[in-house]
Amino acid sequence: MNPVSAAPLEVLRARTSEKWTEHPPDVLPMFVAEMDYPLAEPIRTALHAAVDRGDTGYVSSSNPVFGAFRGFASRRWAWDLEDASFLSTADVSMGIVEILRAVTKPGDRVVITEPVYAPFFDLVTEAGASVLAIPLAESTQTGTTQRRLDFDALESAFRDGARAFLLCNPHNPLGLVHTREDLEAVARLAAAYSVTVVSDEIHAPLTQPGSTFTPYLSVSDDARATGFAVHSASKAWNIAGLKCAVIVGQGEQSAEVMAALPIEVSWRTGQFGVLAGVAAYSEGEAWLDGVLASIAANIDLLDQLLAEHLPGVTWTRPNAGYLAWLDFRALGWGDDPADVILREARVALSAGVDFGEHGAGYARLNLACSPDLLTDAVTRIAQISRQN
Amino acid sequence: MNPVSAAPLEVLRARTSEKWTEHPPDVLPMFVAEMDYPLAEPIRTALHAAVDRGDTGYVSSSNPVFGAFRGFASRRWAWDLEDASFLSTADVSMGIVEILRAVTKPGDRVVITEPVYAPFFDLVTEAGASVLAIPLAESTQTGTTQRRLDFDALESAFRDGARAFLLCNPHNPLGLVHTREDLEAVARLAAAYSVTVVSDEIHAPLTQPGSTFTPYLSVSDDARATGFAVHSASKAWNIAGLKCAVIVGQGEQSAEVMAALPIEVSWRTGQFGVLAGVAAYSEGEAWLDGVLASIAANIDLLDQLLAEHLPGVTWTRPNAGYLAWLDFRALGWGDDPADVILREARVALSAGVDFGEHGAGYARLNLACSPDLLTDAVTRIAQISRQN
Repeated sequence: MNPVSAAPLEVLRARTSEKWTEHPPDVLPMFVAEMDYPLAEPIRTALHAAVDRGDTGYVSSSNPVFGAFRGFASRRWAWDLEDASFLSTADVSMGIVEILRAVTKPGDRVVITEPVYAPFFDLVTEAGASVLAIPLAESTQTGTTQRRLDFDALESAFRDGARAFLLCNPHNPLGLVHTREDLEAVARLAAAYSVTVVSDEIHAPLTQPGSTFTPYLSVSDDARATGFAVHSASKAWNIAGLKCAVIVGQGEQSAEVMAALPIEVSWRTGQFGVLAGVAAYSEGEAWLDGVLASIAANIDLLDQLLAEHLPGVTWTRPNAGYLAWLDFRALGWGDDPADVILREARVALSAGVDFGEHGAGYARLNLACSPDLLTDAVTRIAQISRQN
Repeated sequence: MNPVSAAPLEVLRARTSEKWTEHPPDVLPMFVAEMDYPLAEPIRTALHAAVDRGDTGYVSSSNPVFGAFRGFASRRWAWDLEDASFLSTADVSMGIVEILRAVTKPGDRVVITEPVYAPFFDLVTEAGASVLAIPLAESTQTGTTQRRLDFDALESAFRDGARAFLLCNPHNPLGLVHTREDLEAVARLAAAYSVTVVSDEIHAPLTQPGSTFTPYLSVSDDARATGFAVHSASKAWNIAGLKCAVIVGQGEQSAEVMAALPIEVSWRTGQFGVLAGVAAYSEGEAWLDGVLASIAANIDLLDQLLAEHLPGVTWTRPNAGYLAWLDFRALGWGDDPADVILREARVALSAGVDFGEHGAGYARLNLACSPDLLTDAVTRIAQISRQN
């Protein structure tokens, strides 16, 4: 398995996506979740061919991404989706909104567990529901903070009438891979209190080999009866701009909800998202394994760099994804260290406060880049830490 | 100016979009609005380069499609958008739904004028409003049926409390280019009764040289005060699958509505839709003029073919777009001639009944294809007309 190297900086600077256009060129962009790797060869080949044949029309109603995803899920996670219902849409966030809109009434409470992917707050609101943010439970062992779902708080929220739980599995920004046992517990509680669980599984393919991703719907009949999963190749193969996500249901009730969604929801799927998704799921595993190796090496590198240059900054190594959740509180840079770091070190991180109250004093760093860029970023931040 | 020729049939059959996958290969697909032309060279070049640099991340928040569209609108229609507000989203239908959701309350009536683009019915419902379908006014001169907006019916609907009017400009499936005077009258009525007008202008770039497209917002202060337009390069450059539409507002009130839309609405824009849209609007006019010439030739050809082979079928030549609204009522094939034609002639048209009550007995034919395919289709339909 060959690690995948980041594209040269001059190629990256020619990209026109959010990561490479939001800030002036003296800023190192380590914020939005885009990776600096070149596209996987099967995706490049599929897209070049589609451009040549002008295959840019509407997505086929016999969408081939469902079969490709089913195969990938079976090989990668032993997840049997033979009898599943599938629906595609533009992206995971749109899938989440449409499911929440269907299963909640205006003002219903939807639980999220913070610190969590910042747009979750917006998506619940967009669906007409209200956010009930519960902190993750924290425990500290041998100097490292471990986080997991807080079942007492979840049960209390469910008992008090929350209608849905928007689960982040694996959990962004922590790279936390929930255990099968924890997901079984979620499903039991959801069934007991008739709560719909929507599991955002966009980071699942980026689970490191040492950890095991468990698809939420795979854990029990309870999970399948009340749950939905939303998947996409967008995060793991860096194709967020091509617009394709897959909503998955495995119970009768879920199938009915999906069938009743507005018909235009699936027409919003991007044709190139489908073509790239098929290539990713069917032929993109070697590349994915290479990217996982590069990410693992960067996780090790960041650990060393922090120990050497920023010993006051603590973190818990992620088991999935390429995002590092860094605790800057010991440095006294206030609630929004990303703001200080952008202004003084010219490194763009994501502000921890956007991920919920418990993000104050934190920032999220995207390490899907070259080791050189990562080193440069930490060195820059260390330099201002000595000045402040 | 060089007419653009359709791609060879073997290339078209390799396409995986809806048009080329919905039916088995013995069926000639003339239904969904995809064109059979190859992509414009500037779009091909832009997309190939984007694949090579892996530019598949999130759309930039400083979206370059706005400036490109502003330039195109100025050159093509003398539409001054210097002070306009812009917002992008996945497609025109999504833009319509989000604006309607913002300006109506659940159950409010939204006027559409049928026969009209079938999904309009779904979009109003998706936005939580209810459809009030008003027929277009018809008059017959020298054997041809002319249609236009029915202002008495519109005023009556507005007076009775309709909150919004979803205008199709130019009007699909008729290829009807509304006159400036008619649009001014719409704006006057809208202002008088505080009705929000959402003008779907997706077919505008496909207006034939002999006609003049008038942007709704350009007609008066009344129009700008209460109106929105939604544009996209998707129809004219055949890139519906790349997912980019532009919502335009020119009044203070419209700007406020747009600014208050959920933040995720614009993140749903496709990055390749933006890149292709920029290429289309900035460098795609020569290709567009070539396509318009090919469409004009096919309109002439269809006129001849119908006169020769299907004299019972009448139509009004479209002044915009590549869709032919065919009246089969004289042939006695019932409310849904497309069904008879698909089964017996193996030609797939769009069913007229989907466009509203007044579509019974009609079918819509997509003529953005090679002259050979068009000839083949009419010949096949003529053959069953002799047998029935």
